Amino acid sequence: MASTKLKNPHLDQMTTDYLYHLNIAVDDTKNSINLQKQFGDVKFICMGGTGERMLMLAKYLRDNLQFQDDENGDFINLTASGHRYAVYKIGPVLCCSHGVGISSMSILLHELLKLVKYAKCKDPIFMRVGTSGGIGVDAGTVIITKDAYNGHLRNQHELAILGRTVSRPAKFDETICKEILSCARKDDNFETIIGNTLSAECFYEGQARLDGASCEYQNEDKLQFLEECRIKNIKNFEMEAVMFSALMHHVDVKAAELCVTFLDRLEGDQVKVTKEQKEEFEKRAFTIVGRYIQYKLKQ
Amino acid sequence: MASTKLKNPHLDQMTTDYLYHLNIAVDDTKNSINLQKQFGDVKFICMGGTGERMLMLAKYLRDNLQFQDDENGDFINLTASGHRYAVYKIGPVLCCSHGVGISSMSILLHELLKLVKYAKCKDPIFMRVGTSGGIGVDAGTVIITKDAYNGHLRNQHELAILGRTVSRPAKFDETICKEILSCARKDDNFETIIGNTLSAECFYEGQARLDGASCEYQNEDKLQFLEECRIKNIKNFEMEAVMFSALMHHVDVKAAELCVTFLDRLEGDQVKVTKEQKEEFEKRAFTIVGRYIQYKLKQ
Repeated sequence: MASTKLKNPHLDQMTTDYLYHLNIAVDDTKNSINLQKQFGDVKFICMGGTGERMLMLAKYLRDNLQFQDDENGDFINLTASGHRYAVYKIGPVLCCSHGVGISSMSILLHELLKLVKYAKCKDPIFMRVGTSGGIGVDAGTVIITKDAYNGHLRNQHELAILGRTVSRPAKFDETICKEILSCARKDDNFETIIGNTLSAECFYEGQARLDGASCEYQNEDKLQFLEECRIKNIKNFEMEAVMFSALMHHVDVKAAELCVTFLDRLEGDQVKVTKEQKEEFEKRAFTIVGRYIQYKLKQ
Repeated sequence: MASTKLKNPHLDQMTTDYLYHLNIAVDDTKNSINLQKQFGDVKFICMGGTGERMLMLAKYLRDNLQFQDDENGDFINLTASGHRYAVYKIGPVLCCSHGVGISSMSILLHELLKLVKYAKCKDPIFMRVGTSGGIGVDAGTVIITKDAYNGHLRNQHELAILGRTVSRPAKFDETICKEILSCARKDDNFETIIGNTLSAECFYEGQARLDGASCEYQNEDKLQFLEECRIKNIKNFEMEAVMFSALMHHVDVKAAELCVTFLDRLEGDQVKVTKEQKEEFEKRAFTIVGRYIQYKLKQ
C-alpha cells in the first residue's frame, strides 16, 4: 500500500497549491491534515460525464454496498463552488463528473491526482464509468476498455506540449480489465466484454456521423471507417479513454474504464434510447462497478 | 438577411432530428414551427464555459439592454433536461454554457447551428465570451481574438475525420473584431485589445504549466515557449478558439471571441484572483459584448 507519487518534481517546491477548477485550496502542501481527514480513506474514484449520473452512481453504491452516507441521505457536491465539476463522496468512493471530452477530463484528472496525493490516499483506483456508441454490439452492452485509440486510429495519446507532439501509450492494465470482467455473471440480462475504444475529438465529424452541422463524406466512407475500426477490435466510440489511459499509465496510478453503449453505430447515428432505457443501461455499468468495488474491498 | 445554411447535404434527407445533448427533438425538419416560435428571433448566441457565468450574462443583458424577460425574472435553463449544457434566452440573445475544451464546445456548436437553421434565425452571430490566461498583458484585459493557434503553434484547426487529418483555417472575421474593439471606450478602467489566441488541449502540460500532476520540462523551457507565443502575437491561452473559429468559418456563420484574462502567465501558473476580482473581470467582457449587441441592433 503506497501513497500516490506523481511525475512532477516542481510540486515538491510548492508550499501551497490551489486546485482551481475544484476550488480546493491546499494551504500547506507538506501538512495537508484537512484533506487527509476528508479524503484520506478514498480508494476508488469513479468518473462519468454528467453530475446527474454521478449522483445516481453515488446513491446506487450507498443503497447496494451499504456504505455510510456522511450527509444523511442528502448528497452534497463537494466542488459546487468551482462551478465546473461535481464530486460526491460515499464511503471510500468519490463519484466525479468530468464533462465532455479529453480536455475537460484532463483538468479533472490533474486536480484529482493532486488531491489523492495531498490526501495521502493508499493505492487509489480511478475508473471511468461512461456512456458510448457501440460498433457491432447490441445497445446496452458494457465494454471494458483494453487499448484506446485516437481519432487517427493510432493506439496512443498525442498531446502538444511546448508546441511539440508527445506520444504516450494508451492502454489499461490487463489484470484490472480481467478482474472487472470476472464481475459479470452468466445470469446478467446483458453482455459485458473486453474490447478496444476509440476516443474522438468530435461527436459528429470525428465519429463519422452524417448528422452534424458539417459533413463532407458519404455513407459508404463512414461504413468503410467503421470497418477499419472493427478490424482493430474497436467496440465503442467515446471521447476520453485515450487521454485517460495514457495519463494514468504515465503517472503510474491504477485505472480502468467501462462504458455502456446506447446505440450500434452500424445501424445509425442518432441516439434513440428512451429515458427509461437509458437509465436501465446506465445501471448495468453501475452493477459491474459496484461488484468490482465489493470484490476489491474483500481482498 | 438570410437563414442559416449548413455544409451538410445529408440533413436535407432527414425528416426528424434529435439534438441529443440539448435534448431538443425536431419532429419535422421541414416544418419546425415550434422552434421558429421559440427561437426564430435569436440574433446573438453568446457562449462561455460555465452555466453560472452564462446566467450572470443573461441577467446583465436584461438589466443593461432592457430586453424583455419572458419568465418574469426567473431565468430557466432551456436545456436542463439534457444534463450537459445550460441555455438561457433573453430577448434576441441566447446565453449558453459550453463546458471546457474543444470537444465539449464542438458538440454544443453542431447542435446550436442545427437549432438556428431549423428555427430560421436570420444572420445569427455566435460569440464566445470567455476567460483565459494572458501572456504579457495585465490580468483583467479583454482580448478579442483575430487568429487562433493550436497547441502545435499552427494557425489552423487539425481534426481527425475518418482517421485522416483535416486542417481548417482558424481565423475570425476581421470586420467584426474591429467593430467589437470600437465598443471599448477611453474611460473604461481596463484595456481591450485585438490579439491572437492559443487553444491548448490541456490546462496543465498543454499550457506549459509547472503545477500539473505531470510535468517533464523546466521553468526555462516554459519561458522559451511563452516567448515563441509572444512572437506570434499570441496574447492569451484558452481551450476552444481554434475549433470555434474554424468550424464557424467552414460553415460560413458569423463568429467572434472575446476573453478576459485572469492572470499573466509570465508571472506564474496559479490562478489567484479573488472571487470579487473574478466577477469584476468577467463583467468587463459582458460590458463590451453588451455594447456590441446594442450597436448591432441599432444598425
